[in-house]
Amino acid sequence: MATAGKVIRCRAAVAWAAGKPLSVEEVEVAPPKAQEVRVKIVATGICCTDDHVLGGYFPNAEFPVIPGHEGAGIVESIGEGVTSVKPGDKVIPLCLPQCGQCCFCLNPDSNYCMKSHLYESQNLMPDKTSRFTCKGKRIHHFLWISTFAEYTVMPEYAVAKIEAAAPLDKVCLLACGFPTGYGAAINTAKVKPGSTCAVFGLGGVGLSVVMGCKAAGASRIIGVDINKDKFAKAKELGATDCVNPKDFTKPIHEVLMEMTGLGVDYSFEAIGLADTLTAALASCNMNTGVCVMAGELASGSMVSFDPLLLLSGRTWRGTLLGGWKMRDSIPKLVSSYLEKKFNSDLLITHTLPIAEVNKGFELLRAGKSIRSVLLF
Amino acid sequence: MATAGKVIRCRAAVAWAAGKPLSVEEVEVAPPKAQEVRVKIVATGICCTDDHVLGGYFPNAEFPVIPGHEGAGIVESIGEGVTSVKPGDKVIPLCLPQCGQCCFCLNPDSNYCMKSHLYESQNLMPDKTSRFTCKGKRIHHFLWISTFAEYTVMPEYAVAKIEAAAPLDKVCLLACGFPTGYGAAINTAKVKPGSTCAVFGLGGVGLSVVMGCKAAGASRIIGVDINKDKFAKAKELGATDCVNPKDFTKPIHEVLMEMTGLGVDYSFEAIGLADTLTAALASCNMNTGVCVMAGELASGSMVSFDPLLLLSGRTWRGTLLGGWKMRDSIPKLVSSYLEKKFNSDLLITHTLPIAEVNKGFELLRAGKSIRSVLLF
Repeated sequence: MATAGKVIRCRAAVAWAAGKPLSVEEVEVAPPKAQEVRVKIVATGICCTDDHVLGGYFPNAEFPVIPGHEGAGIVESIGEGVTSVKPGDKVIPLCLPQCGQCCFCLNPDSNYCMKSHLYESQNLMPDKTSRFTCKGKRIHHFLWISTFAEYTVMPEYAVAKIEAAAPLDKVCLLACGFPTGYGAAINTAKVKPGSTCAVFGLGGVGLSVVMGCKAAGASRIIGVDINKDKFAKAKELGATDCVNPKDFTKPIHEVLMEMTGLGVDYSFEAIGLADTLTAALASCNMNTGVCVMAGELASGSMVSFDPLLLLSGRTWRGTLLGGWKMRDSIPKLVSSYLEKKFNSDLLITHTLPIAEVNKGFELLRAGKSIRSVLLF
Repeated sequence: MATAGKVIRCRAAVAWAAGKPLSVEEVEVAPPKAQEVRVKIVATGICCTDDHVLGGYFPNAEFPVIPGHEGAGIVESIGEGVTSVKPGDKVIPLCLPQCGQCCFCLNPDSNYCMKSHLYESQNLMPDKTSRFTCKGKRIHHFLWISTFAEYTVMPEYAVAKIEAAAPLDKVCLLACGFPTGYGAAINTAKVKPGSTCAVFGLGGVGLSVVMGCKAAGASRIIGVDINKDKFAKAKELGATDCVNPKDFTKPIHEVLMEMTGLGVDYSFEAIGLADTLTAALASCNMNTGVCVMAGELASGSMVSFDPLLLLSGRTWRGTLLGGWKMRDSIPKLVSSYLEKKFNSDLLITHTLPIAEVNKGFELLRAGKSIRSVLLF
């Protein structure tokens, strides 16, 4: 490769400080060191988590930083010792790595890895240096993968090879939003056939929960959102009913109790707000109900709830990336996508050039997009 | 029977109003109506839940009331249509009924019953009348079973026949405290062999959790209590370590993290306080940890927590009576007791006549008793 071993100059969307719009800049991307991979990003989705970074709400993020974590691309070059991918391979960078050696990776019940961000900061490469500079300044990585850069460097255990037939501008969604919601239903809640589900929030993650509930055989799937414009898509993907809390004077959990008699079997929070998280808990069956938290609350948030909701037997669970061990599972999900076992394309409402990244965030904040995909 | 069909005059400990000591009175107990059973209580334990009633903290309790829900006795007479027990049978009254017909009873994953107190008030019999009067006043039932009365009436589906060989002054503990804790470990958490557990609160329920963790094969069981006098008994029952949060300046969840590396696999709250409930959640493994809430918080309490504790993958579950379907399971637990599969006798620290019921509560509040058993 002509670029292997060299610094690459390319475009990237840089967040210089919290609360500011992204700035598309020319950045320098150093070559991968040992056990690292440099990837040319072709497409990357815009996820709410990136918006948390921009707002300064993501735990332990450091500025300046190149966000982005829902990308797909092609390996440009590899560092010494890398064996699982080679230049030219289509890959998905993993925002939840899988080192394969820590006690979490060795535990079949866990999809966490001790190299993950909540355990070890991923704001710099494992050797505590950055591969990015811009205007002479060191730029931080985000979750090691920074997919808002045209070229980005990550550890080998944070990238997974996918099938060559995969359309990168579509399967980038399999890097975060889709597996988070789909897995929340399939893996975390383990939705049973014939069950009743409620999904709070009909954005990209929530709609993926709807798809997961449908795939698991749920007989009733109730979508909950204050934006009724989202109902048509939810119904297209499997929701049997949609309710708007603004249409009722009583609390939404009472509405769902009345609709279902004893509450739903499974409820999902896919927004990231304290009020909807406790409403989701209260909406499920008091004895056997399972409430899954898939939405990420802003760092520093606190949630207050009535403990009787738990004592009577409910289960409250969190899920990270839908419980998938990513390096093992994402390639399989890509294969399932190619076999048309699900259609995550329906989540893509906008495709924009990277120069319009801020427009993509505006669409997200205004509730006008589900997923915008940025192209380099 | 000489008394069948007649009103019985006998002793009972009556709570006339919240915040007052119990008053041992002569009460009148009407005969059982159709589908009801009148039981002569021989022995009854004192549980924290009764203290919640006395304090006015139990949800929906009504005064005046005869508390008590951890009793064992002998059937005195039966109402029309009762087939599962007959006069002379040894029985345990059930604070969680099992009607056998509701959707919860028919669900193998549920031990709740739609006749239970959180769903249908048990302050009066199902026909909305009381069987108790005292000094001309109607006295409320508690959880339908009011075991602080020498004779008490309950629906047939709130009583279970047990083996004739069972010592009533011992197996009364199998009516609430022991199965709640033991089942929290065995049924709700499903503790795995070789796992690490932490138990917050070493009272009757907490020590029963310790016994359940040991029976399930846990390799490390850490007892947590601010009363170090409880440590010897905890170690006798299976705790491998005991820690007193007062011995540390750092929060107890940090102490447990340091002791275990990644946190415990299972944590249990058996006190009923918001702070220890969130500390228990924070003490378990961030990805695969399961925290079981077995302690009952005072009615109206709120719990505030950092949602990141859940998002990373922890599971937070409540348990009522340890997940046992009581009418099916309590007789089996009594048989297991008789086969010496566990020794719940070790939880009994005091035996008192009913006249000393208030002394029993004082011992409980002072942390000087585990279980006091009252005898009629």
